[in-house]
Amino acid sequence: MSATSLTSVSFNTSSWDLKRREGGKPYVRCGSPASSEKTVRVGVLGASGYTGSEVLRLLANHPRFGVALLTADRKAGQPIASVFPHLATEKLPDLIAIKDANFSDVDAVFCCLPHGTTQEIIKGLPKHLKIVDLSADFRLRDISEYEEWYGQPHRAPELQKEAIYGLTEVLREEIRNARLVANPGCYPTSIQIPLVPLIKAKLIEIKNIIIDAKSGVSGAGRSAKENLLYTEVAEGINSYGVTRHRHVPETEQGLSDAASSKVTISFTPHLMPMIRGMQSTIYVEMSPGVTTEDLYQQLKRSYENEEFAILLGNGVVPRTHSVRGTNYCLINVFPDRIPGRAIIISVIDNLVKGASGQALQNLNLMMGFPENLGLHYQSLFP
Amino acid sequence: MSATSLTSVSFNTSSWDLKRREGGKPYVRCGSPASSEKTVRVGVLGASGYTGSEVLRLLANHPRFGVALLTADRKAGQPIASVFPHLATEKLPDLIAIKDANFSDVDAVFCCLPHGTTQEIIKGLPKHLKIVDLSADFRLRDISEYEEWYGQPHRAPELQKEAIYGLTEVLREEIRNARLVANPGCYPTSIQIPLVPLIKAKLIEIKNIIIDAKSGVSGAGRSAKENLLYTEVAEGINSYGVTRHRHVPETEQGLSDAASSKVTISFTPHLMPMIRGMQSTIYVEMSPGVTTEDLYQQLKRSYENEEFAILLGNGVVPRTHSVRGTNYCLINVFPDRIPGRAIIISVIDNLVKGASGQALQNLNLMMGFPENLGLHYQSLFP
Amino acid sequence: MSATSLTSVSFNTSSWDLKRREGGKPYVRCGSPASSEKTVRVGVLGASGYTGSEVLRLLANHPRFGVALLTADRKAGQPIASVFPHLATEKLPDLIAIKDANFSDVDAVFCCLPHGTTQEIIKGLPKHLKIVDLSADFRLRDISEYEEWYGQPHRAPELQKEAIYGLTEVLREEIRNARLVANPGCYPTSIQIPLVPLIKAKLIEIKNIIIDAKSGVSGAGRSAKENLLYTEVAEGINSYGVTRHRHVPETEQGLSDAASSKVTISFTPHLMPMIRGMQSTIYVEMSPGVTTEDLYQQLKRSYENEEFAILLGNGVVPRTHSVRGTNYCLINVFPDRIPGRAIIISVIDNLVKGASGQALQNLNLMMGFPENLGLHYQSLFP
Amino acid sequence: MSATSLTSVSFNTSSWDLKRREGGKPYVRCGSPASSEKTVRVGVLGASGYTGSEVLRLLANHPRFGVALLTADRKAGQPIASVFPHLATEKLPDLIAIKDANFSDVDAVFCCLPHGTTQEIIKGLPKHLKIVDLSADFRLRDISEYEEWYGQPHRAPELQKEAIYGLTEVLREEIRNARLVANPGCYPTSIQIPLVPLIKAKLIEIKNIIIDAKSGVSGAGRSAKENLLYTEVAEGINSYGVTRHRHVPETEQGLSDAASSKVTISFTPHLMPMIRGMQSTIYVEMSPGVTTEDLYQQLKRSYENEEFAILLGNGVVPRTHSVRGTNYCLINVFPDRIPGRAIIISVIDNLVKGASGQALQNLNLMMGFPENLGLHYQSLFP
Repeated sequence: MSATSLTSVSFNTSSWDLKRREGGKPYVRCGSPASSEKTVRVGVLGASGYTGSEVLRLLANHPRFGVALLTADRKAGQPIASVFPHLATEKLPDLIAIKDANFSDVDAVFCCLPHGTTQEIIKGLPKHLKIVDLSADFRLRDISEYEEWYGQPHRAPELQKEAIYGLTEVLREEIRNARLVANPGCYPTSIQIPLVPLIKAKLIEIKNIIIDAKSGVSGAGRSAKENLLYTEVAEGINSYGVTRHRHVPETEQGLSDAASSKVTISFTPHLMPMIRGMQSTIYVEMSPGVTTEDLYQQLKRSYENEEFAILLGNGVVPRTHSVRGTNYCLINVFPDRIPGRAIIISVIDNLVKGASGQALQNLNLMMGFPENLGLHYQSLFP
Repeated sequence: MSATSLTSVSFNTSSWDLKRREGGKPYVRCGSPASSEKTVRVGVLGASGYTGSEVLRLLANHPRFGVALLTADRKAGQPIASVFPHLATEKLPDLIAIKDANFSDVDAVFCCLPHGTTQEIIKGLPKHLKIVDLSADFRLRDISEYEEWYGQPHRAPELQKEAIYGLTEVLREEIRNARLVANPGCYPTSIQIPLVPLIKAKLIEIKNIIIDAKSGVSGAGRSAKENLLYTEVAEGINSYGVTRHRHVPETEQGLSDAASSKVTISFTPHLMPMIRGMQSTIYVEMSPGVTTEDLYQQLKRSYENEEFAILLGNGVVPRTHSVRGTNYCLINVFPDRIPGRAIIISVIDNLVKGASGQALQNLNLMMGFPENLGLHYQSLFP
Repeated sequence: MSATSLTSVSFNTSSWDLKRREGGKPYVRCGSPASSEKTVRVGVLGASGYTGSEVLRLLANHPRFGVALLTADRKAGQPIASVFPHLATEKLPDLIAIKDANFSDVDAVFCCLPHGTTQEIIKGLPKHLKIVDLSADFRLRDISEYEEWYGQPHRAPELQKEAIYGLTEVLREEIRNARLVANPGCYPTSIQIPLVPLIKAKLIEIKNIIIDAKSGVSGAGRSAKENLLYTEVAEGINSYGVTRHRHVPETEQGLSDAASSKVTISFTPHLMPMIRGMQSTIYVEMSPGVTTEDLYQQLKRSYENEEFAILLGNGVVPRTHSVRGTNYCLINVFPDRIPGRAIIISVIDNLVKGASGQALQNLNLMMGFPENLGLHYQSLFP
Repeated sequence: MSATSLTSVSFNTSSWDLKRREGGKPYVRCGSPASSEKTVRVGVLGASGYTGSEVLRLLANHPRFGVALLTADRKAGQPIASVFPHLATEKLPDLIAIKDANFSDVDAVFCCLPHGTTQEIIKGLPKHLKIVDLSADFRLRDISEYEEWYGQPHRAPELQKEAIYGLTEVLREEIRNARLVANPGCYPTSIQIPLVPLIKAKLIEIKNIIIDAKSGVSGAGRSAKENLLYTEVAEGINSYGVTRHRHVPETEQGLSDAASSKVTISFTPHLMPMIRGMQSTIYVEMSPGVTTEDLYQQLKRSYENEEFAILLGNGVVPRTHSVRGTNYCLINVFPDRIPGRAIIISVIDNLVKGASGQALQNLNLMMGFPENLGLHYQSLFP
């Protein structure tokens, strides 16, 4: 059965899922739908990093996506539990090298590989696969910009033309029909969701957009670097990549599209002593005569039917605590002390709406499912 | 429709749940079953504390339990989102005072109130309600012991006789038929799960059981106390209630039952700079001739068919990171350097298996559902 | 001997300090100068809060200031170690009620009381006392502004006229001759140190100064509030008091003085999961023709002989980790992506340069000592 | 002038220290004694790790020790501030390779190198140097035990014979006359300080000593390892090296010496989400007829004149928060619930009393100074 034919969905979970742990007796498994219903066979390429494991955490409760393939070249041959002990309770395939993967049994893949190598690998994948790429490799339409910011020429320019930028709330229809989705970066997601509608409606000036962003540490991935050690991160804060962060061109591309003219932003990311979570505090100048109430009403109109982009009630401050482990982006608008200016706050979980959650949201669309399927999580608070 | 008649379950979620946010258009909601299937109407008494909100987080994905009632006397009249902003995305009833609650529309309650007052309130509840009490009020069979440790006479001794102690893995059958379940404390859960089978099998000596336990801060609840401030907890550790913690009699009661003779434990809890998570490191003397392999095999036999009590592979150290947000209890056994001794390590999330998760596991049983219904969560790691 | 006569300093610490612990034999104490040299008798009013205890931590190594008096009304009669166990190793007077204090044996006081009550208390203090007030009560010259932001009329307007604002690097000479110093708030300190010289030199525009500030939790003091619990703060971030924080008028007062015209700032503070530390990320527009190098050179000129205001080398990002427990303010300037704009970063320890350290720096000056006396601490890193 | 002739100390700090920052004017520096008094020239070998930087932090306030030499082979040629930005405010020599060091200008060294290589390096050092070695290389008298636990033969067995084990409170007189001191490990320090006097006095049984130890992350050093990342450590706890930690033989050596017979301990270390701090919770059986009051009185007698080993008042629980950044070891004794047993709690800062602080305490003694010179720090709390 072709996964793409699954657009008309009928559930039947009256039969409990029977599961065996090694050497054990069968027992009923429920709460998640029966595995017989998991008709879309999903692969995770690069399953030994945080975005890979986060995809697996989310898929554990997905009624239709089953995990058929996990790759991790340096950990090939190992069970996933040896890399991520918290996944020991889940029944998952062992890790294999990508060169040994048989994609004929796979309908779709999440590509959780580092930028640079990703291009080559996706170029080599069979064409029947739906692909959500979580790397930065297909996010910039202009491949000369890619070369400028990533220090190497783009190796798959033809694929770049095909790739759809996966900011779901903004490009939903295009994503539905895409084969290759370039999943947005965490910072660009948190910034574009509130700004795109305001820029499109010409409610804010596109010059002097100042973004002070704060990120949890998991955004830097699982690589062992001195500056990411507990001892170096806990109990302190620091800015990094001041004005030179690689998420700048991606963000400017999206905002420029919305403005139909070139937008240059001020963007300063800060590394925070928290595992997950991201806040963008955005300082903008409103267009002449516009009030913060106008901004609020515009965002309300834009997002009132959205599941995951949520405008909070008047005056309520979005908190990263409210989105931990969830796919929500909470936003709000505040008047500034300086007349004519506004402050916009946006929070996400960098690993979910900022990475794996939005990726799943996109794959849901690409496979013809409701986009919120399997994404109904409340924040792990406290 | 009586909730207890729901033992034969048939799912039908082919029709998507239509949901409206205020002022918005309808949109499809899925991932969780349709609300029309949520036929058990559940109340949460004391919904403004952490165990209450944790019940709500877990119920959000439960296919059969719908939230019908939330009480919080001091917050009566407020929406739950004003107390717990992270629940703003969920459709939940407003908080009311318990005296205003109409229990005729409710099938079961989670009682998340402080000890002491709980007894009176449960005494006044209608008899058709299934009750899982998360306080300490009905955990001690011997009411004189209650008086000794809690400093006041027990006010509902007749109910105490009816109450079943809710350590699911040990007392499953009794719980199935219970009307009032006394949900275990977090420390006692983490200790009894590994020790009860070993004591029953007479593999360890019941004297000199030494338990060094470490808990996250959420175990102390949400009350504003100086010693729980971020500034007082972060970046340090301290023992508290050395030998005098109230979870001692509960633990000794369970271990004594298993041993059929009085067990006195050494128990030292430590407050740790983490929100959730609990580890009990247990130092025991083995019975003559017994090896750690014998202990391991016994635990394997006892728990190989359990969903939530998991014996890890040989030599794998249980980590609280692996159970964050989940209902699992991970355990393992290690040989000690001192011959004849063993070290047992057990970890849980104090708010889930140590409180609200086990409560839900118990209510599942009491309502005739598979105990794991709605409890399929992977650890939020990292 | 009058403390104020101590302007000519001669040290003699060749004789070791003999100290007895109760019941013990005498032993030599050194590393800190002999207590016979501690000729200035200092009182700490409100010693049970964090700024009070921080004064005591710093004084432990001060060669000239001895602690003669500690007050804490609600803890009167207790040893300080019962309130702050970490001070148990220090020989300090017990806490008394302020009404029982005998100020005839005291030369100077640090006033660490809450705003509002402070005014009355300082009004009642004998006139021979040098006073550094760490509350907000005497920081605003315009008492109508005090009333507006603090919600009550100022109760000591005559004292207000006498009070000198204690931003040491800016008002050193005035502080030297002051009797009452209003010690600056933490945010205003971190903002004014970099901005005042730039504004005075007319290198930056005074409109649209945008300050995104991040603070550790200790800035909120030791009061038991729900929002300061470990469980509510750890692993998250949130803005608070958006545009309405009480440090706004104090900061605007200082910047307006520098500009000789009214400055209105955009100021958004964020609560961070760390105990100490503060960063202000400041976004400014440069005056026409000015470059970031001009800003850098101006700050270099202004601060090259300062002990505690340190301009870092070109491109080095100030980190709160570098100032933990110290009196340093580290600053630097960066070019923004948007032409004509600059980003200024400033970090302090909110309890030291942002409170008790600057207070000690000021009292040193007021007593005729070098301002760095007893303040030579390196950051507790890691 | 030979450093070892400095036993008769006379201070003269009436002249302020003049210091220049590059390009700046001279300014007075005080609070620390004049650099002209810093007559002992100290080298730090391996200054790019945490124990090295901690030595530098402590020396900043030492009246007699000046830093003459810093080595770090892989960072040779760099200023220390490029490795540890928080030391930028201190005037320190640049890092050089150890092979380029000129030891003729050095009186004493702290050796902060990894175990294994340390032996060779110390073997090659000139004999006039006093050496405090912070590695594990000279802690075990029995070199076959070294080989067993460190997996390689000892390469300097003749030096091993000369080395004195630097547990100051226990071996003070031997340390005074030593040339080479093997500074104790952090765990062994926290365990031996309370246990040695009790074992010597035969108040506790030497069998079944159970030690549950908890350590901050800095004990693992600054090496970039996945398991030490913020994301892997924060918000969780885990045991490691169960029964196989390398601090076991060192601890057993010290306890066996005290007992004059072989002691085998149960030792389980736990990695905690905090930067610094260590607690050993020790479970012991008392000798027949002995009470916890006897233990308390013995510790009181043993340590009442000690500066850094502090027995707290009856019932007061030692907290790591009270020793952050300090050289104190706080201890106390508690009755266990199980008759005949006691619980002993001991806390230190693993980087200070557990490493660099005790090293400085030892070098003070070796150079004829009071051992507390330059070590008078109060805990950085909060």
